[in-house]
Amino acid sequence: MKHYTSINDIDNIDDWIKEAKELKANPLKYRDLGKDKTLGLLFFNSSLRTRLSTQKAALNLGMNPIVMNVSGDAWGLEFEDGTVMNGNMAEHIREAAAVVSQYCDIIAVRAFPTLTDKEKDESEQVMNAFMKYASVPIVNMESATGHPLQGFTDALTISEYKKVSKPKVVLSWAPHIKALPHAVANSFTQAMQKMDVEFVIANPEGYDLNPEITGDTPVYHNQKEAFEDADFVYTKNWSSYEHYGKVVNTDPDWMITKEKIGNAKFMHCLPVRRNVVVKDAVLDSDSSIVIEQANNRTYAAQLVLKKILENG
Amino acid sequence: MKHYTSINDIDNIDDWIKEAKELKANPLKYRDLGKDKTLGLLFFNSSLRTRLSTQKAALNLGMNPIVMNVSGDAWGLEFEDGTVMNGNMAEHIREAAAVVSQYCDIIAVRAFPTLTDKEKDESEQVMNAFMKYASVPIVNMESATGHPLQGFTDALTISEYKKVSKPKVVLSWAPHIKALPHAVANSFTQAMQKMDVEFVIANPEGYDLNPEITGDTPVYHNQKEAFEDADFVYTKNWSSYEHYGKVVNTDPDWMITKEKIGNAKFMHCLPVRRNVVVKDAVLDSDSSIVIEQANNRTYAAQLVLKKILENG
Amino acid sequence: MKHYTSINDIDNIDDWIKEAKELKANPLKYRDLGKDKTLGLLFFNSSLRTRLSTQKAALNLGMNPIVMNVSGDAWGLEFEDGTVMNGNMAEHIREAAAVVSQYCDIIAVRAFPTLTDKEKDESEQVMNAFMKYASVPIVNMESATGHPLQGFTDALTISEYKKVSKPKVVLSWAPHIKALPHAVANSFTQAMQKMDVEFVIANPEGYDLNPEITGDTPVYHNQKEAFEDADFVYTKNWSSYEHYGKVVNTDPDWMITKEKIGNAKFMHCLPVRRNVVVKDAVLDSDSSIVIEQANNRTYAAQLVLKKILENG
Repeated sequence: MKHYTSINDIDNIDDWIKEAKELKANPLKYRDLGKDKTLGLLFFNSSLRTRLSTQKAALNLGMNPIVMNVSGDAWGLEFEDGTVMNGNMAEHIREAAAVVSQYCDIIAVRAFPTLTDKEKDESEQVMNAFMKYASVPIVNMESATGHPLQGFTDALTISEYKKVSKPKVVLSWAPHIKALPHAVANSFTQAMQKMDVEFVIANPEGYDLNPEITGDTPVYHNQKEAFEDADFVYTKNWSSYEHYGKVVNTDPDWMITKEKIGNAKFMHCLPVRRNVVVKDAVLDSDSSIVIEQANNRTYAAQLVLKKILENG
Repeated sequence: MKHYTSINDIDNIDDWIKEAKELKANPLKYRDLGKDKTLGLLFFNSSLRTRLSTQKAALNLGMNPIVMNVSGDAWGLEFEDGTVMNGNMAEHIREAAAVVSQYCDIIAVRAFPTLTDKEKDESEQVMNAFMKYASVPIVNMESATGHPLQGFTDALTISEYKKVSKPKVVLSWAPHIKALPHAVANSFTQAMQKMDVEFVIANPEGYDLNPEITGDTPVYHNQKEAFEDADFVYTKNWSSYEHYGKVVNTDPDWMITKEKIGNAKFMHCLPVRRNVVVKDAVLDSDSSIVIEQANNRTYAAQLVLKKILENG
Repeated sequence: MKHYTSINDIDNIDDWIKEAKELKANPLKYRDLGKDKTLGLLFFNSSLRTRLSTQKAALNLGMNPIVMNVSGDAWGLEFEDGTVMNGNMAEHIREAAAVVSQYCDIIAVRAFPTLTDKEKDESEQVMNAFMKYASVPIVNMESATGHPLQGFTDALTISEYKKVSKPKVVLSWAPHIKALPHAVANSFTQAMQKMDVEFVIANPEGYDLNPEITGDTPVYHNQKEAFEDADFVYTKNWSSYEHYGKVVNTDPDWMITKEKIGNAKFMHCLPVRRNVVVKDAVLDSDSSIVIEQANNRTYAAQLVLKKILENG
């Protein structure tokens, strides 16, 4: 594996899960693998879990993490080709990516979508520019349309907590006051499609995800129906894909409650707005595995870095 | 010791001072103690000494420090329970503290008071929430009402520089243009109350510290009287406690001068505003031990981390 | 060598280049030299290459880098002596530099010029204050009038790419929309004056650099004439020195093109504004060695740190 920028970069998700569990059981086993190697973490956007867990993963492998908030610490980056750069952007991604490749052995990048320009977001301009102009492997720490470190984390967590061989997993939209990206929902969908689970999606009308991603996955506009016999309820808000980036529904009836969830495990990528997305009673109960899920971010990142280092 | 969030967490200050001096004499002696352990430093507010000295302390123990400016790097945190999170705060401390505990072996937190809501500040909402929801030890890098790493540093410094067995130590208020927290003054007071010193406080009327903290310590409203035969003059501005968070006096007569200080050693936690709090002539003379005091921040932090690691 | 704050701190540039090439061939050879030593990187301004390459250099020597954005992370610093600090600045450089010296074995500082106050900028107030009040070595990561890590990088790069024993090197001004510092141009000029090259400068009238720095170096106001038979064209914008800090010319005729450059190698310190300073066709051709040049930033910084550590 050269880059890890999409769930599609996982060749065999069952093998990956097995390996990740081994790493989790013995996180320092490969602490010499990354010796004298540097991981550059470039943030165009806020981050807590990704920022800390990816650094932790690098440290577990003996790597030196170097963190940079691109906009605050360095220069505004231009991504368009052929432009006359007489505006706000002082540096072109062509130089920036090539230069950072000289100092870092792997570059991890977080860059959220515009949510106003669908075409631009779907072109994955930032992630693709890094892959094109960097000379080292790129790891996606959440891009315009995907969050594959989260998606694999989620697959690993479901594998750990499942009680039946083929659990029913529901991805449910929930209300939120802000327009949020589709990245987590997309990568979760792609990860579930690769696993041996019964996977369905529940969202209000007008909130169907990109059909190229959902494919054959059943989509319910009735949350109750979708939740029937669920083993896992993965909750996440996203803005409308059809009315791109718009908040067209904040219906509190879609909030996750103890009643709705029944015996299913509750999952969420975090951060989560309490009593907007999900009731306190769910998060503060044994149904919730969100903290254990967040813990797996370290091992997902560590497996990705390990595979890249071994390939290098 | 599980957490270190208050001077009250020090069981025996004389033993601690002895141990800190040993660490200072041989700072790398325990460099294997923190191997493969991570210290997360979470800043809700600005920091220079604390930021650098706590990282240095961690490095001396072989730990990996990971620094995060909470507001700038991550998400606004909600501390109230039961709220409907449809405002500016995107993540609840319950999740944040629990999640960070997955990536860090110890969490150090800096969070200043509001200085407008006395009850909230005195409840130590942030520090207590971290202690409650984190599953790892918490270190206070200055909270609403205390700065125990500074307080212990000051005790250590006085122990090093004292020339008589029971020196006279004065904590003196000094003028400042801004409303400042009580944290440093509180922790210094608590530390002195645990040491074998003659300790008095000097401040203008209207500036008495929380009486629950000052207790039996003599409080002078006449600076000259308080300074008589002083061996150490510890200077610090704080806003009014009575008229909570207000600046009710900026009387330059309370500024520290060479004449006032006589043969006493001058101490201050820094940063200090020159010629507002204290005259250049004091800071630039041999009377001042502020730089040596700042140096001890490393060993105070290192002792705290060492004790937590040994307990772990 | 105690400090490295100017190209004048290089005793023999040919020896330095030789040593830097050896380091580049074997960057981890001295990885024990900086063991348990800390490099503090203090940024008053944005940085990408310097931020990453100096950290990388420190890591290659086994040092622990600690990065701080002074304004964002800590307190506003006062540099004037004798002032009554009742304004925005909360800490004086006298304390800050002395304090940071307690936690770091070497301090590296970036502080850009005002470009409005020539006298202040030329006094190198920030860098000189750090040298005066710190008790450890200071490295200049770009100051008001010099960028000696860049200047030495450039000398090293020219030495690597030259095809004749005494190449012709042109420093050419190019247009830009903003008022930029003279630091890179100054240090490049000083580095070239120490090397065995034919060195000339090309800039429009009104853009002559400080004559105390250019000295006997020929200055052309005709770019074409200057570029004749050039082996290297080093391009950089700077604001007017005569009309201090002003943008008095944005003539696109001074932009670097493929035609102008001929067989010469194109160099630039980066970041560079494409199609304002230089045409895409130059940057995207084999004539450009800007990425290789940026790579040498690591070895320039590493050599400087190595020399300081060996001296310590």
